[in-house]
Amino acid sequence: MAMQDGLEVALLATAAAVEKKLEKLLPPLAGAEHHLIEAMRYSMFAGGKRLRPFLVVASADLFGVNRDCSLRVAAAIECIHCYSLIHDDLPVMDDDDMRRGRATCHIKFGQATAILAGDALQTLAFEILAEDATHEDPWVRCELVRALARAAGVHGMAGGQTIDLASENVDLDIGETTRLQQLKTGALICFSVEAGAVLGKASNPMRNRLMGYARDLGLAFQITDDLLDYAGDPDEMGKAVGKDAKQGKSTFVSIMGPERARQQAAMLARQAAEHLDEFGQKAVLLKDLARYVVERRK
Amino acid sequence: MAMQDGLEVALLATAAAVEKKLEKLLPPLAGAEHHLIEAMRYSMFAGGKRLRPFLVVASADLFGVNRDCSLRVAAAIECIHCYSLIHDDLPVMDDDDMRRGRATCHIKFGQATAILAGDALQTLAFEILAEDATHEDPWVRCELVRALARAAGVHGMAGGQTIDLASENVDLDIGETTRLQQLKTGALICFSVEAGAVLGKASNPMRNRLMGYARDLGLAFQITDDLLDYAGDPDEMGKAVGKDAKQGKSTFVSIMGPERARQQAAMLARQAAEHLDEFGQKAVLLKDLARYVVERRK
Repeated sequence: MAMQDGLEVALLATAAAVEKKLEKLLPPLAGAEHHLIEAMRYSMFAGGKRLRPFLVVASADLFGVNRDCSLRVAAAIECIHCYSLIHDDLPVMDDDDMRRGRATCHIKFGQATAILAGDALQTLAFEILAEDATHEDPWVRCELVRALARAAGVHGMAGGQTIDLASENVDLDIGETTRLQQLKTGALICFSVEAGAVLGKASNPMRNRLMGYARDLGLAFQITDDLLDYAGDPDEMGKAVGKDAKQGKSTFVSIMGPERARQQAAMLARQAAEHLDEFGQKAVLLKDLARYVVERRK
Repeated sequence: MAMQDGLEVALLATAAAVEKKLEKLLPPLAGAEHHLIEAMRYSMFAGGKRLRPFLVVASADLFGVNRDCSLRVAAAIECIHCYSLIHDDLPVMDDDDMRRGRATCHIKFGQATAILAGDALQTLAFEILAEDATHEDPWVRCELVRALARAAGVHGMAGGQTIDLASENVDLDIGETTRLQQLKTGALICFSVEAGAVLGKASNPMRNRLMGYARDLGLAFQITDDLLDYAGDPDEMGKAVGKDAKQGKSTFVSIMGPERARQQAAMLARQAAEHLDEFGQKAVLLKDLARYVVERRK
């Protein structure tokens, strides 16, 4: 299908562009702290879909934002995402040895360095956002820092991970599971889309439509993640599956069953796309992405 | 001595004021993530000298900065300092069970929550700095975010901790030890003083004098820390001593011997104070602080 082909091309192009940007922002370095930078780069340049960078760039494109600016914000979000993966994989957290088909950061570099690599990646994200090159208007840069901090902090990603850890062998209902996921993965996905609107100084109605898209997309994404953990192919995914059931975690699949979960994800993906109708043809990639997110195999 | 009494009063007053500010910025909260907030608050409200907050406020006072603004920056720095202590105390890092006379965060809340509490405290620091209330000029807020990120990141505190971990049972020379400490503890102390200058939009010569003060002060502080670990009273300090020797770490004391280390610290404290001569009587508290830092018993 031509449109989906267009999305594939755009995803790959954004991934390549954000990796080039990250390469400049986090170059390899000699010196006593090179071990830390090596660990940060190992986790940062491990492939991955670069979904969040794509959301930033595609949202910012709606408002004609300079790509150099949107790619810096995309790089910052990827630093936060990557830090969260490194810390989540630690033995005292989710205890994962493999990610994207290779050893996780703490397996490769040791736990102490992995903790510090996550810490320093978080720091780097905020440094990138605050620098002049991210946007000429310092108010916009502050707004990005503030919004990213809210998405990543105690009332966002870190809070969600806390609830997730406390939920092993606890039965959550659908409302609690939804809130957990809105914090743990939804907040950063929402920020990725919101960042495009902030960079483009979008009007409030435009920003709200994008936020509606992001909320539905984030939930559709997470339900699909649960489905993949339930029935995905570990070889294709490059990581273990069936972990939620083993850890006794409530997921959308355990609560709704796989069939209803699939229907719910598809419904959310359609609804996400509808939020963008007023943007017309310009929003075609973001709309295609909503379909891709629920149809992906990894 | 009257001047030192004035410093004691000022240190206590700033500590109380920054704790009041932190109480507002990180209130206790019901809800599923309350456990995380409790861990953050446990470590944040554990007493301590609040040296870095004092440096921010006293430097900002030189330029007549509104105390509401300087106390917000002081709170942000304390969040970063506290996050670094929580992560440094973890078993895979320095493995400390006690800090300030009570159980460390991971002993009290478990390692997973301790890691997340550190993560979320770092995030909170940047959120505080980016908010409107920190300074009316968004350029100043961006400059604070950028400078704090540099001080805390791979070329600052996190880089220093990496070198420190790699230095167990390795003989460092005086230059390597100095660089390690400039990164690990010096960068955040420098930023604390610099932040006052940024908030006050100080001229470059003024800013440079303050930075000279901060560099000497930071080194004097660290040498004294090494001396206290070598010969301090564990009851008075509320933590174990003799750890550096046990871990085979090079310190200013192991390299120079205690007597020369003491002389060096005293010399640096005098030199720190001299950087501030041009500020006249206004800088008396900062000058007294330099003396206090090397004379303290804990």
